[in-house]
Amino acid sequence: MSAGDGSKVRWAVIGTGNICSDFCAALKLVDNAETVAVAARELPKAQAFAKRFGIGKAYGSYDELARDRSLAVDVCYVGLINTKHKDVVCELLRNGRNVVCEKPLGMTVEEVKEMVKVARDNKSFLTEGFWTRHFPAFKKIDEIVSEGTIGRVSAIHCDFGFLAAQDSRTRLKELGGGAIYDIGCYTVQYATHLLGTPAKSWRPLSIAAAGVMDPVEQVDLNGGISMTFDDKSDPSARLRTLAVLHFGTDGRRSQTARILGDKGHVEVHRIMHCPTHVTCVLYTDGGSVRDDHTFELPAWRPGEGGIPEDFRFFFANSEGLAYEAERVGQCVKEGLLEMPECPLDESIAIAQIMQTAREQMGGQQMGE
Amino acid sequence: MSAGDGSKVRWAVIGTGNICSDFCAALKLVDNAETVAVAARELPKAQAFAKRFGIGKAYGSYDELARDRSLAVDVCYVGLINTKHKDVVCELLRNGRNVVCEKPLGMTVEEVKEMVKVARDNKSFLTEGFWTRHFPAFKKIDEIVSEGTIGRVSAIHCDFGFLAAQDSRTRLKELGGGAIYDIGCYTVQYATHLLGTPAKSWRPLSIAAAGVMDPVEQVDLNGGISMTFDDKSDPSARLRTLAVLHFGTDGRRSQTARILGDKGHVEVHRIMHCPTHVTCVLYTDGGSVRDDHTFELPAWRPGEGGIPEDFRFFFANSEGLAYEAERVGQCVKEGLLEMPECPLDESIAIAQIMQTAREQMGGQQMGE
Repeated sequence: MSAGDGSKVRWAVIGTGNICSDFCAALKLVDNAETVAVAARELPKAQAFAKRFGIGKAYGSYDELARDRSLAVDVCYVGLINTKHKDVVCELLRNGRNVVCEKPLGMTVEEVKEMVKVARDNKSFLTEGFWTRHFPAFKKIDEIVSEGTIGRVSAIHCDFGFLAAQDSRTRLKELGGGAIYDIGCYTVQYATHLLGTPAKSWRPLSIAAAGVMDPVEQVDLNGGISMTFDDKSDPSARLRTLAVLHFGTDGRRSQTARILGDKGHVEVHRIMHCPTHVTCVLYTDGGSVRDDHTFELPAWRPGEGGIPEDFRFFFANSEGLAYEAERVGQCVKEGLLEMPECPLDESIAIAQIMQTAREQMGGQQMGE
Repeated sequence: MSAGDGSKVRWAVIGTGNICSDFCAALKLVDNAETVAVAARELPKAQAFAKRFGIGKAYGSYDELARDRSLAVDVCYVGLINTKHKDVVCELLRNGRNVVCEKPLGMTVEEVKEMVKVARDNKSFLTEGFWTRHFPAFKKIDEIVSEGTIGRVSAIHCDFGFLAAQDSRTRLKELGGGAIYDIGCYTVQYATHLLGTPAKSWRPLSIAAAGVMDPVEQVDLNGGISMTFDDKSDPSARLRTLAVLHFGTDGRRSQTARILGDKGHVEVHRIMHCPTHVTCVLYTDGGSVRDDHTFELPAWRPGEGGIPEDFRFFFANSEGLAYEAERVGQCVKEGLLEMPECPLDESIAIAQIMQTAREQMGGQQMGE
């Protein structure tokens, strides 16, 4: 399915909601990308979306796009509500399509494992859309940490979330709502990426979570997850590392992250899931030295490069979806079946952590 | 033991370490206070301390001070290492002394319960030295929250700690070390104070903690505690509230706290356990309005008012110990047996939370 060298990566977009609209616009900012098809639950919606973004083919069902042998497409972007991911993605994979699926990949560990199995069985590319990984600011964090600049990393900390409207999708069970799916997953992937290891399948050694459930909808509104990991820099060391993650849709968090080392720390300024500004603080005898790293988002203008005149990104920093789209394009061109920066075993670990956390929420009782 | 109206509150200081030195200097900033005695393990230490701070009586043992019938003292400040608190405080209480003891009150729930029982049996005043409670900035938080300015409080979040030297007391088991005792307790008392209620004995409904232990010393180096509470504003509501606490002695945390409501939030700027700057952020249709509240610490100068010429406070913002000292003085003058802002049942709850958290640290395992 990979495009030949020099040719553009042909994208299909599954869904026509806000995130799909943002993704389509971001694709316009990617040199090697073109969007050739879109699918919605109803044909008129797909047609309107196709017209708006200059997309050649519109489908009135996701499966129809998946199964259309006449459609040559290199990779599909799935931006549906969480409960739809598994079935739609599996159908795409079974039809030999490569897929980048919005986070969370599935609603349960079982769903995620099934999706990964179908991808591997069909030798299709699959990745969970953790766009965070592809931001230059996040790569700067990786560089600082992996080069040992801040010394041994002892802990990471994330504080992420916002105040959602009462009728927001994220607060409704039927629509796959829940703070951990929408918000918490971004904090979890910080932990697995920075503290986890392939040798341990990115899993923590221990996990402890509590959170608040909406008593009517039975979706989680917020949560705190604490996890310990082996020391990544020295797995034989008996000293562990810690991740403390706080997230919620019931109040405005600071949207920041912090990675703590014994020679310094990294401050990830808001917005931590799509960062453009990180500060590396190095400790000195007398105090500390701050080193700021800021990055411009991809530039764009309404009405230029195929972006509609009245277009505005719905989500903050959605221009940065272009980083992800470009990298996914490279992966499928190279014939990879997984994203090296975000492997499928890590997605399974993330699903396991979220499921364990959900099971624990409200379950831990006080001792005497 | 209460001084007559108009007379000064007579203090005894138990211990001569850094915190006792800071407390003694802070007492010089309190109008109604005078320090009349000091006790150390060795008489020369006590005498040197007494000379430095102009204290009339010096004792070479804590019990000697406690039992000296000739010593008229209104309240004793205990600033010893954590493992010594219980025995020394109980001896003081049994001899009819009023006591403010540095946090943590005891090493275990059992110790704290015993101390509280001895205080009540002997009708002596006892309080845990959570000086945080007495800072004007903390009272401003109370005011903002209790007046409903930020609406219904859904969650609080603390991120507190520093990078301690390897040979620091806080990292040594023998000296009662442990991040939760030194640092974590301050985050726990934010949660019990802001989310707990007397009706529930300040206890959470659930608690989940993980942390990293020093493999040699077996003291905790860091931790994350998540807790849920009944809704304080409406205990009959089925919607709970959340506290997420992150602390450690193995890296520089942001030293901040945040209280989240549905109409706004409060940012407690560093240093959250002795705050001088809080921002109340109120949400508007278009964004938010920020309202800053800053407070000057009590003023002092080396060489003035009985403070030695070469004196420097060892801990940050220790001038603020004067707030606590003044309030304790009022309490004992009024003949109170507990501090209304920091009751003993709350200290028991704090000890229960810390003990439960310590038991859980490293104990929660991943599900499949």
